[in-house]
Amino acid sequence: MGDKQLHLGLFLMGSGHHIASWRHPDVDSDQVTSFRYFAEIAKKAEAGKLDMLFLSDGLSFHELSHPAELSRFEPVSLLSALAVVTNKIGLASTVTTTYNEPFHVARKFLSLDHLSEGRAGWNVVTSYYESEAKNFSKSEHLAHQDRYIRAKEFLDVVNGLWDSWEPDALVRNKEQGIYFEKEKLHRIHHKGTYFSVEGPLNIARSPQGKPVIIQAGSSDAGVNLAAKSADIIFTAQDNLADAKAFYQRVKDKVQTYGRDPDHVKIMPGVSVYVGNTRAEAVEKYEQLQRLITPEVGKNLLSEYLGGFDISPYSVDGPLPEIPETNGNKSRRALLIKLAEEKQLTIRELYQYVAGSRGHRLIFGTAEEIADDLENWLHEDGADGFNLMLPSFPNSLDDFVDQVIPVLQERGIYRKDYTASTLRAHLGLPEPVYKSPILNNQR
Amino acid sequence: MGDKQLHLGLFLMGSGHHIASWRHPDVDSDQVTSFRYFAEIAKKAEAGKLDMLFLSDGLSFHELSHPAELSRFEPVSLLSALAVVTNKIGLASTVTTTYNEPFHVARKFLSLDHLSEGRAGWNVVTSYYESEAKNFSKSEHLAHQDRYIRAKEFLDVVNGLWDSWEPDALVRNKEQGIYFEKEKLHRIHHKGTYFSVEGPLNIARSPQGKPVIIQAGSSDAGVNLAAKSADIIFTAQDNLADAKAFYQRVKDKVQTYGRDPDHVKIMPGVSVYVGNTRAEAVEKYEQLQRLITPEVGKNLLSEYLGGFDISPYSVDGPLPEIPETNGNKSRRALLIKLAEEKQLTIRELYQYVAGSRGHRLIFGTAEEIADDLENWLHEDGADGFNLMLPSFPNSLDDFVDQVIPVLQERGIYRKDYTASTLRAHLGLPEPVYKSPILNNQR
Repeated sequence: MGDKQLHLGLFLMGSGHHIASWRHPDVDSDQVTSFRYFAEIAKKAEAGKLDMLFLSDGLSFHELSHPAELSRFEPVSLLSALAVVTNKIGLASTVTTTYNEPFHVARKFLSLDHLSEGRAGWNVVTSYYESEAKNFSKSEHLAHQDRYIRAKEFLDVVNGLWDSWEPDALVRNKEQGIYFEKEKLHRIHHKGTYFSVEGPLNIARSPQGKPVIIQAGSSDAGVNLAAKSADIIFTAQDNLADAKAFYQRVKDKVQTYGRDPDHVKIMPGVSVYVGNTRAEAVEKYEQLQRLITPEVGKNLLSEYLGGFDISPYSVDGPLPEIPETNGNKSRRALLIKLAEEKQLTIRELYQYVAGSRGHRLIFGTAEEIADDLENWLHEDGADGFNLMLPSFPNSLDDFVDQVIPVLQERGIYRKDYTASTLRAHLGLPEPVYKSPILNNQR
Repeated sequence: MGDKQLHLGLFLMGSGHHIASWRHPDVDSDQVTSFRYFAEIAKKAEAGKLDMLFLSDGLSFHELSHPAELSRFEPVSLLSALAVVTNKIGLASTVTTTYNEPFHVARKFLSLDHLSEGRAGWNVVTSYYESEAKNFSKSEHLAHQDRYIRAKEFLDVVNGLWDSWEPDALVRNKEQGIYFEKEKLHRIHHKGTYFSVEGPLNIARSPQGKPVIIQAGSSDAGVNLAAKSADIIFTAQDNLADAKAFYQRVKDKVQTYGRDPDHVKIMPGVSVYVGNTRAEAVEKYEQLQRLITPEVGKNLLSEYLGGFDISPYSVDGPLPEIPETNGNKSRRALLIKLAEEKQLTIRELYQYVAGSRGHRLIFGTAEEIADDLENWLHEDGADGFNLMLPSFPNSLDDFVDQVIPVLQERGIYRKDYTASTLRAHLGLPEPVYKSPILNNQR
């Protein structure tokens, strides 16, 4: 346990994780439509030796949720461009299985893996916004259970396509005029409930063997899918006791699938405020909280509660009874539990959500932040963290310049990269090549 | 007519347009899976002040067609990475309307337009390979006519989504906490035969107003769609007389749609061999022709004839009767006509196809090449050319170092870029903003 190493991903959404980040005096409110902004963030994260940069995504527009999310680059295109200005850091993104085709997704991530020479990661999600269905010719959304069935099949097809080229299929023998060996490219002949895909893919096997698979979701269906197929699990954990229980539950489940628990990294989200004193760190948070307009806060809360409209209720009253919806179940449940346990008003709850977006908040000096992260690491609450920093570039500068050196001094974080693929940063083995036909028959 | 300026696009597929290019002694056979290769080509094309770099694409794998096409980057991701290493050159790619969703495609190209600061172009095609259907859960391909109906609707939806943000929708008023003006974002409420799309798009209006639209296809359906909506038309024209007739037919058709004929640029494909003498240029061609294996040549021909299997026929005999298929009609017809007119054997025809892929071949000194291109320009056979250079990087070096200076001296080609968007390079006006709702009701 003494040599357990911390892994860190930088979650990058808009101008920062805090909903009012774009209004912060040190933030350029125009930055999210500029490639230069993303390039600077990626380079700074690489200077901090982070495992990866991670982009969230969505396929619709929410008038009142997160202003800086309104205009978003297509994430794999953006990561492809960022691959050019970085050398080591992993590059990962959310892409939904609900409104995509596995052939396109398999290809996009292999393409990114080639462009970045082995740094690609895919966060496999199901879509939960009704508004996304309406952009993809669907009158209604798939039910929660069906989205997971589709996601599982989607992932099987993608894995099959990633195995459709053997590693040494391209021989390129100029003398004999033989470009590739036919018997080393495989059709996958997939015929399932949602997809029929013949293959092979039209891009060679990935430098990483396969791009890294990330999953989130704490529902039973989510945990099962992740334990079977993920390399990294993102999760929202509010306190160490719950985090430890989740960690143990997932690692046990991973073993029931015959996998090594060390090969699945559990990374809870955490929003970090660093100051020269704890009071200064808290004031950084309060400064952003004061910038939230009530309209934005209430609407974000409605969205997080699965679309239930909270606007008619008094901001200083308690949360009303929230009916079941077809949305993201674990996030909704977390918020209802939090409001009950801490007896929060609607205003307090939306302030909490707007500040952290359902993830844990920590405040303190660099030493205090390092203490917290190290404690979770050693107590088996986490293998690392998905850093949901409040605003860019200032909170990333704080973290990289102040917290990273402390983690390095303590010997729980790399002083420099020792490898150049995301898989290797995470200490994961390269996948052994398996014929996609055999996979399919399994 | 004296000041008519030439426009040049560089068509980039694998190691070069010639099917045996990867075997050329000056070509690195591994280059097509390397970003560095594409970066060098893009920078050289920009040094030659070309209007744009253009990537072909496909969504399946053809065992025996073009070896260097087997492994292909996802094109919009690749262009996004190339946007970082270039500043002026336009960046365009084929993306099919047959196996994509308009929301994804609209977003990808706006994303590229932002990343490149206004240099994106989309070549709108329909898919004609049965093998592509099988990668997208379709048991059979849409009929030719239906593919065009779908393409037209697809393009309407994409245009609507591109108009779903007014140019000044993002106000980002920090003081008042107003990020955008609600009334300047529009749902498009599209409900059609193939698609229902609500919108708005989740990315701000493009720096170019809209990315440049490219179309090919010489069938009536293809010409109609292009005349109505394209900025550039790619075409295969074998001789000046036919090219002039096509040029006139398209420009007339453009006018019937109420558009300015100067705002649609007609760019035939041309494969160019440059030498210090004409004989040296021809020898460069023959050198590549000798590298074609008969198996590759015959299979490419089968593919170009819409999947009709030519392998049982003698290579030294004539082309048999070729039945109608559901494939690319104009290319098939061009080849049958060519074989008849020039009395070609199968071997001669596949050699022609393998060398030119159905496009015109020209050989000569830089002066002779410039004469040819200038003649087509002034005779109204073309507004420019889509350069299908045989092998990279050597034929691009020849063209940029030898032919471009001659074109510049003659005053028919830019000596330097005078603008930084693709639309401006082409001399096209910025699109006037139109409400997508009004477009939809038209």
